[in-house]
Amino acid sequence: MKTTPVKGTNDYLPAEAALRDKLQAAILDVYKNHGFEHIITPAMEDAENLDKSDGGDNLNLIFKILKRGEKLERALADGGELSDMGLRYDLTLPLCRYYAANRANLPSPAKLIQCDRVWRAERPQKGRLREFMQCDIDIIGSSSPDCEVELITTTACALSAIGIGNFRVRVNDRALLRGVLLRAGFPAESLDTVCVSFDKLDKIGADGVVAELTEKCFEPAVIENFKSFLAACPIDIDRIGEFTDDETAAKRLSDIIASARALSDGKYDIVFDISLVRGQGYYTGAVFEIESVDFHGAICGGGRYDNLIGKFTGEPTPAVGFSIGFERIFSILSGAAVKDSSARVAVLYDEGDFIRAEKRARELRADYDVAIYERAKKMGKQLARLEERGFVGYSLPDGELRIFGQ
Amino acid sequence: MKTTPVKGTNDYLPAEAALRDKLQAAILDVYKNHGFEHIITPAMEDAENLDKSDGGDNLNLIFKILKRGEKLERALADGGELSDMGLRYDLTLPLCRYYAANRANLPSPAKLIQCDRVWRAERPQKGRLREFMQCDIDIIGSSSPDCEVELITTTACALSAIGIGNFRVRVNDRALLRGVLLRAGFPAESLDTVCVSFDKLDKIGADGVVAELTEKCFEPAVIENFKSFLAACPIDIDRIGEFTDDETAAKRLSDIIASARALSDGKYDIVFDISLVRGQGYYTGAVFEIESVDFHGAICGGGRYDNLIGKFTGEPTPAVGFSIGFERIFSILSGAAVKDSSARVAVLYDEGDFIRAEKRARELRADYDVAIYERAKKMGKQLARLEERGFVGYSLPDGELRIFGQ
Repeated sequence: MKTTPVKGTNDYLPAEAALRDKLQAAILDVYKNHGFEHIITPAMEDAENLDKSDGGDNLNLIFKILKRGEKLERALADGGELSDMGLRYDLTLPLCRYYAANRANLPSPAKLIQCDRVWRAERPQKGRLREFMQCDIDIIGSSSPDCEVELITTTACALSAIGIGNFRVRVNDRALLRGVLLRAGFPAESLDTVCVSFDKLDKIGADGVVAELTEKCFEPAVIENFKSFLAACPIDIDRIGEFTDDETAAKRLSDIIASARALSDGKYDIVFDISLVRGQGYYTGAVFEIESVDFHGAICGGGRYDNLIGKFTGEPTPAVGFSIGFERIFSILSGAAVKDSSARVAVLYDEGDFIRAEKRARELRADYDVAIYERAKKMGKQLARLEERGFVGYSLPDGELRIFGQ
Repeated sequence: MKTTPVKGTNDYLPAEAALRDKLQAAILDVYKNHGFEHIITPAMEDAENLDKSDGGDNLNLIFKILKRGEKLERALADGGELSDMGLRYDLTLPLCRYYAANRANLPSPAKLIQCDRVWRAERPQKGRLREFMQCDIDIIGSSSPDCEVELITTTACALSAIGIGNFRVRVNDRALLRGVLLRAGFPAESLDTVCVSFDKLDKIGADGVVAELTEKCFEPAVIENFKSFLAACPIDIDRIGEFTDDETAAKRLSDIIASARALSDGKYDIVFDISLVRGQGYYTGAVFEIESVDFHGAICGGGRYDNLIGKFTGEPTPAVGFSIGFERIFSILSGAAVKDSSARVAVLYDEGDFIRAEKRARELRADYDVAIYERAKKMGKQLARLEERGFVGYSLPDGELRIFGQ
């Protein structure tokens, strides 16, 4: 039988699990301390819900659950769908369904937390896991831009709490970007493909973006317009009005940036980046990302998705969320030593003496986490191992507690 | 789009999630306080591992993950397996694989914790969930019966910590039961089917068991032998030697019961029950269950499985585990009110005043969990709702904290 975990998933050793537990608890504490409420949703979702969820590329990465019994036989006979459920690829789609189902029992706006696993059939490559944790906060039922600010400051506070101090928040607005592209003359139905190219500005530069758009056969006049916009990039939020007709979006994002800056106490930057797109198709307004300055790449991402919940409820319901990419954080911090909140000691006993060992352990458990082990023949070696594993001392069933190194 | 969670799974509202978090944290604390270490394994396991895991009926309840892309096309064309992974149906099989893969980095014996979700395609009926939590502790690498005692006292301590005080531990030993059935004259290869009937002693009585065995066409002389044994049931552990040749198993279980009783401080009973079988095929020695006296049915189950890890490592590795059936506990306690460890207050602000609201919230977060909400036009109604939801007070951005009812 195979001993390795399935491709793209991890086993976590005790020290790793302790760090994961500690980070998750710290993040959850900050979220709760900011008035958000924890909810729990199932790992599996209806296949149709997943398919209709505007999840962009992620829709191609869904792990599907095979139908069973008669249902499966019928599907095989008819050439029908082999699956009617899948593992969730993010926590936003389950949240929307949850909100639609439970909104009568939730406050409005609802400020909700999910910290849980998601699954994506990513191609195995460095850093891409097929099972990973996300830690999300969402505000549902308010279209106030204060929500964006609250999510940014709360997430920043969570990052600080776990020792990720040096980061930068990048923000954009899908509506604003749309306005810029329309003004340049791109046809409304082509904006998605334009965005795919524009999103690469960081990597391939303005010339690369222009080359891609030319290859995509957009009119030279339109590309020329867009070139003069690209020349002005990176562009300040105060100047974006020159390139779009959507003054509302410009004002809204400008206000979000100003408020988030005012609340950052100068500890982190809020940077406007018109080329920030983010993959999910469901975003409708502000989008944001946090990137670590010390470690390349995004560690958090989110945005406003005002149309997704309406698909379930039939009524427009504004919503915005921010997700901490837990695995990235974990890999950054996994070198860090975990100080257990309570120190561990061992009670060592000889065969036949378990009851006295357990009773001695009970006395010590008020002050320590206490493990019971049979005493090894080579007790010195055993003690050295315990010390290596982080135990601070040991006791025999009828002995005093001996602290290592004293 | 469908708003209900998929069949057999649950959404949890904030108050329910708070109770689940609290129970899980309390159980984990007790486990850690007893020197066990938390580990984490993936939700998905290799299909072949699952199929060969001696999981009894659970093997028919595995949710399988559909292959993807070319692999799926090939399987459909060849009539091959449509799945090569499944969701774990318990935490024991993943633990064994984990131990085999990571034993070089684990202490011996390894005392490990898993608290996580498992999935079974149960028929939807009251109380049978398709996604549920288990909280397991296992000791791997020791064949000492002290392990059984340690698991029983640790689990009992966890139950007490979460307020389940009134329970009873039922214990048996597979080897002992085997000895009894062999002495009665049942053929060795038929013991599993005999156990299926004998396991129902509680429900259908001795006559029912005899009727089933007669129907299964066992020899009248054998059934007659077994009848005289049934007449002696419930049998005391001290008398079981009269009905088996396996003195070792009898002595071992007798010692376990005596030690567990000595450590129970009279707070719970340890009951020998020769008819306790437990479904999993992988158990080899002691098996145990805890049942609530106040609420019908088992709330914990476990046993020794000395052969399962060897399937992965090729070397015999003794192991024993005990699992808390978290969902049963949750349903018993779900009426109980959750006292949040920290009290919640709200900061209410008017549009345009978010920054001052957030700054006021920051002052209060040292002492309270603080949620920020826009002030409703009908503020009295809003305050009443907050109080209903468990908030203890509120503040305006520039005001004092007002505690409700003062």
